[in-house]
Amino acid sequence: MQDKPIVRAAKKHDFDAWLPLWDGYNTFYGRSGDTALPMEITQSTWSRFFDAYEPMHALVAEYDGKLVGLVHFLYHRHTTIKGPTCYLQDLFTDPSLRGKGVGRALIEAVYEKARTDGVDRVYWQTHETNHTAMALYNQVAEKTGFVIYRKLM
Amino acid sequence: MQDKPIVRAAKKHDFDAWLPLWDGYNTFYGRSGDTALPMEITQSTWSRFFDAYEPMHALVAEYDGKLVGLVHFLYHRHTTIKGPTCYLQDLFTDPSLRGKGVGRALIEAVYEKARTDGVDRVYWQTHETNHTAMALYNQVAEKTGFVIYRKLM
Amino acid sequence: MQDKPIVRAAKKHDFDAWLPLWDGYNTFYGRSGDTALPMEITQSTWSRFFDAYEPMHALVAEYDGKLVGLVHFLYHRHTTIKGPTCYLQDLFTDPSLRGKGVGRALIEAVYEKARTDGVDRVYWQTHETNHTAMALYNQVAEKTGFVIYRKLM
Amino acid sequence: MQDKPIVRAAKKHDFDAWLPLWDGYNTFYGRSGDTALPMEITQSTWSRFFDAYEPMHALVAEYDGKLVGLVHFLYHRHTTIKGPTCYLQDLFTDPSLRGKGVGRALIEAVYEKARTDGVDRVYWQTHETNHTAMALYNQVAEKTGFVIYRKLM
Repeated sequence: MQDKPIVRAAKKHDFDAWLPLWDGYNTFYGRSGDTALPMEITQSTWSRFFDAYEPMHALVAEYDGKLVGLVHFLYHRHTTIKGPTCYLQDLFTDPSLRGKGVGRALIEAVYEKARTDGVDRVYWQTHETNHTAMALYNQVAEKTGFVIYRKLM
Repeated sequence: MQDKPIVRAAKKHDFDAWLPLWDGYNTFYGRSGDTALPMEITQSTWSRFFDAYEPMHALVAEYDGKLVGLVHFLYHRHTTIKGPTCYLQDLFTDPSLRGKGVGRALIEAVYEKARTDGVDRVYWQTHETNHTAMALYNQVAEKTGFVIYRKLM
Repeated sequence: MQDKPIVRAAKKHDFDAWLPLWDGYNTFYGRSGDTALPMEITQSTWSRFFDAYEPMHALVAEYDGKLVGLVHFLYHRHTTIKGPTCYLQDLFTDPSLRGKGVGRALIEAVYEKARTDGVDRVYWQTHETNHTAMALYNQVAEKTGFVIYRKLM
Repeated sequence: MQDKPIVRAAKKHDFDAWLPLWDGYNTFYGRSGDTALPMEITQSTWSRFFDAYEPMHALVAEYDGKLVGLVHFLYHRHTTIKGPTCYLQDLFTDPSLRGKGVGRALIEAVYEKARTDGVDRVYWQTHETNHTAMALYNQVAEKTGFVIYRKLM
């Protein structure tokens, strides 16, 4: 059995193995059944990971030859730095593999990719009630004290 | 005396009147004196507001013929919607004009611009200790319960 | 009868009136019948005109209440200027309205939009055998002497 | 002596070795002396090659440990394809190394990078009087018959 997950860029042929992880992630956020994310959006997002014009990227974690985790991130402009910032939008690990360091490996792979791309900050959002996730996040990043307001129109 | 502030797109010739507001905003976040934002970044950000390739925008509020507020926002990709989302990054009102509805007018102008641009969500961050700001934000948006983690490398 | 065409930004509800012009344009370039542009690409392109993240734009010309012309342009980076350049990619006038100044009005509207957006150059391609188009282009722009090489892989 | 040039991505520390090639390229197009490209633009362009948000890229050719060529390309939207197209904007080889296959190696490296990035077309412009360049281009690409019109405002 493998020690550590292997993290690598997603490839187009990963779609079928990536989709159940993406569905798991969306279900966690209440997007399932009647409120499921439309397949049209999933396909649009997936195709953007392979669109050289879009600064959106996906990494996947392999463990014993199976995809067990995903992380999606994108670069966007920022008013108080010259280069872009990195927004890590989605992170998910197969529940049966929790505690094997998959989430941490995915986050650290984003750090490494951002550094290679000349970007020196990575940020993400998590819900204030997600204590399980925060137990990991507190080890690898800083809780900033900033909270999110949103307007849906 | 004017009833309501006028909110409009920033123009290149606004730079000198916008700069003190931008400095006030940065000072509020501790970027002053030795930790002041380099002028090179201010100029890069300002020029991006007028760069048709960059999805970054600035609005300003006028009151009695004087610039009294700014708001900066940008569009970036999002993995669970097809179009972009709108990140309202900076908001500032001249302290002597607080309570005149400038901040609210600036936020609502972003909503209107986003709608016109086909974008149906606007979000921003605020510090959990900024109760003054949150008194306004609670009236015009939803506190999501999401918090920000960040890694500076 | 109207003197001059009205040129304005395309709106989402223009799709049905814009489509025959777009089809006419594609047919002119040999994309019809078996080689027709897939509807999926037409829809992707159309939706980008209304995507605030994409620097792609469409204008249409109205004449006697009817859409009679289109022009599509986009901004992209350029290595020897600081801001973007404007690439006018598609231009088409309903054949029954030729000679009414529709093409010229569309090109000039792109110039005006580019100027408003702080962009001081607009360029396009035309086939060296398209003498009809060049009769107009020679009046409103400069033939540069540059020719296009392309590799399809 | 080396058989073939090595082509690789430009790195930040290449700036001093890249600059004379960039100057040579600009001089060829008449941008020297009084009409020289401002250093501010050179620096802006160079920094964009390392800006993860910008779809602009630079490759360099090394020969016997020395930088002897450059190629710059960018991805931009296109109305009749779904993904981006690749515009190869600048190509230059040290005049003392002409005839060693440097230009061809640079072009082919762009093809390979575009393919890896999921982009299946590369195009560029050349002046109709540049017969030396066209002798190479005719071997590696197709002359399309399209010519460039431009309006400087």
